[in-house]
Amino acid sequence: MGWGTLSSSPFFITIEISRVLSEKPYEVPPYLLRKCKGKPPVRTAVAGADHPVAMESARQAVSLGLIEPVFVGDQSSVLALAASMGWDISGYRIVHAPGDAKAPAAAVALARGHEVAALMKGQVHTDALMAAVVNRASGLRTSRRLSHIFHMTVPGRERVLMITDGAVNIHPHTDAKLHITQNAVDLAHALGNTNPKVALLSGTESLIDAMPSSTDAAEVVRRANNGEVTGATIDGPFAFDNAISPAAARLKGVDSPVAGYADILVVPNIETGNGLFKMMAYFMSATAAGIVMGAQVPIMLTSRADPPEARVASAALAAIVANHT
Amino acid sequence: MGWGTLSSSPFFITIEISRVLSEKPYEVPPYLLRKCKGKPPVRTAVAGADHPVAMESARQAVSLGLIEPVFVGDQSSVLALAASMGWDISGYRIVHAPGDAKAPAAAVALARGHEVAALMKGQVHTDALMAAVVNRASGLRTSRRLSHIFHMTVPGRERVLMITDGAVNIHPHTDAKLHITQNAVDLAHALGNTNPKVALLSGTESLIDAMPSSTDAAEVVRRANNGEVTGATIDGPFAFDNAISPAAARLKGVDSPVAGYADILVVPNIETGNGLFKMMAYFMSATAAGIVMGAQVPIMLTSRADPPEARVASAALAAIVANHT
Repeated sequence: MGWGTLSSSPFFITIEISRVLSEKPYEVPPYLLRKCKGKPPVRTAVAGADHPVAMESARQAVSLGLIEPVFVGDQSSVLALAASMGWDISGYRIVHAPGDAKAPAAAVALARGHEVAALMKGQVHTDALMAAVVNRASGLRTSRRLSHIFHMTVPGRERVLMITDGAVNIHPHTDAKLHITQNAVDLAHALGNTNPKVALLSGTESLIDAMPSSTDAAEVVRRANNGEVTGATIDGPFAFDNAISPAAARLKGVDSPVAGYADILVVPNIETGNGLFKMMAYFMSATAAGIVMGAQVPIMLTSRADPPEARVASAALAAIVANHT
Repeated sequence: MGWGTLSSSPFFITIEISRVLSEKPYEVPPYLLRKCKGKPPVRTAVAGADHPVAMESARQAVSLGLIEPVFVGDQSSVLALAASMGWDISGYRIVHAPGDAKAPAAAVALARGHEVAALMKGQVHTDALMAAVVNRASGLRTSRRLSHIFHMTVPGRERVLMITDGAVNIHPHTDAKLHITQNAVDLAHALGNTNPKVALLSGTESLIDAMPSSTDAAEVVRRANNGEVTGATIDGPFAFDNAISPAAARLKGVDSPVAGYADILVVPNIETGNGLFKMMAYFMSATAAGIVMGAQVPIMLTSRADPPEARVASAALAAIVANHT
């Protein structure tokens, strides 16, 4: 990512604010790599391995000892790419299943047969991969709804902020938010946080009928604390400020063990989660490690626009989850 | 705002990320003060002046030559507060109208009678002030819907990013978004940006029926470019990344004069706008200057939790708007 050009507007200096504000490079959170050390690599089906970005992601994860890949895709393309990279993949299995029509189902079948313990999205469409995962006959469903979590870290800091769901569930209803919450709590547990603080986010910390996300957050909290979510301290609704800033929470009179110290933000809609994670990534060089939980195996779901550090962090997360369960 | 305390969780170091990430102080954007220089102070009704924060905000705005206050509130409290601050307010008018029941209506009446050209929210509830403003018989309605704009700046940078609506309109429909857009464009014009770039935000840059904010953004863009909004370059839907990062826009193949260079983000719902502005304020020390446009006079709408710099910046915005029209 480089500097943008000056815009033609007379007053606004439209530069690429991301690189201006955060000169720091992206980084793989060191604590994730520490947690993976000494653990065996996790057998991982790379769905749609026949693309340079997918192969590069797999190689980085392999070189850090995170995964042992099973390449799923067009066999000759995978071999050609590996050769062009100078990567000897003769020790790894390749499953010939090219394209959106075959690669997702083949990767999912490997997980169903316990031949792999994690999935990595390569060059397949997210929709195609998810459709194979949720297929009632041949997929990887559990009693839990699938949801996506962004594990956000800023270079040089140990602080983790999870944002869910900014990628899969668009406008989840109350039941879905309970599953989304439990999935994120499960991830926190795998990472060693035995009692994460969960904030149900709205645009306000008050209960306002005209803002359904506030009253729904209260309902999620009520049901969660009634036993539908376990292993966490859960409260809400919060506005962003009183979820993450103790000072803002004090000033607004929000009294809660979660206020100001949220580890997990459960957002009311995908637009909120998507905007928040991208603002952190683009304005603050935060590493956004994405993972889908709620299926029989964790799924590394990354985007073409992700920097390599985010891909590696995502693989580390999945490896930790797979080794934890 | 100080450092938070360590949490009891074994792994997560829960500190106040805001102060950790942005050691820079808040600042009033210097360009706003430059724009106000040489212009007369704007007569401003301070609705609910009988509170220390309101009086302090007014004094700061006066000392910078931004406003000439008319204090609306409990007269004896205003006088006592001024005395305790050592502020000689004998040259200013006081309108005795205490409380939510009287102060908003009295302040609005001053604007209707052209005795003031701006309103500043003091110690009254936002709902009470807005109700007085939108009152069909006695308020300050125009043909335009009211909307709120956050004018965001980061210390040391000239770049402005406007976010609308993160405070007043909860889940605006298509018609409302057109007004929201025009109000923000009007503000940009007053600030000297004659052709701002406006991005209609969604969770994706694609048109996805399952995500109504994406298709609605396209409809807003179509109607805006059909003449319902003037004086701007408007496009969408965008996800946050391709709205503000030219590199992300290129990578996603988003080809638009707005892509990567948005001056104004029109968000699909209040939760998105509220979260984004607060993340910038708390994680990046951004100054969030809030203003309500679309009424007969601009309204400085600040929150108890705002730092003084945001209040001053809000007053500068209103003064620029009032002097522009």
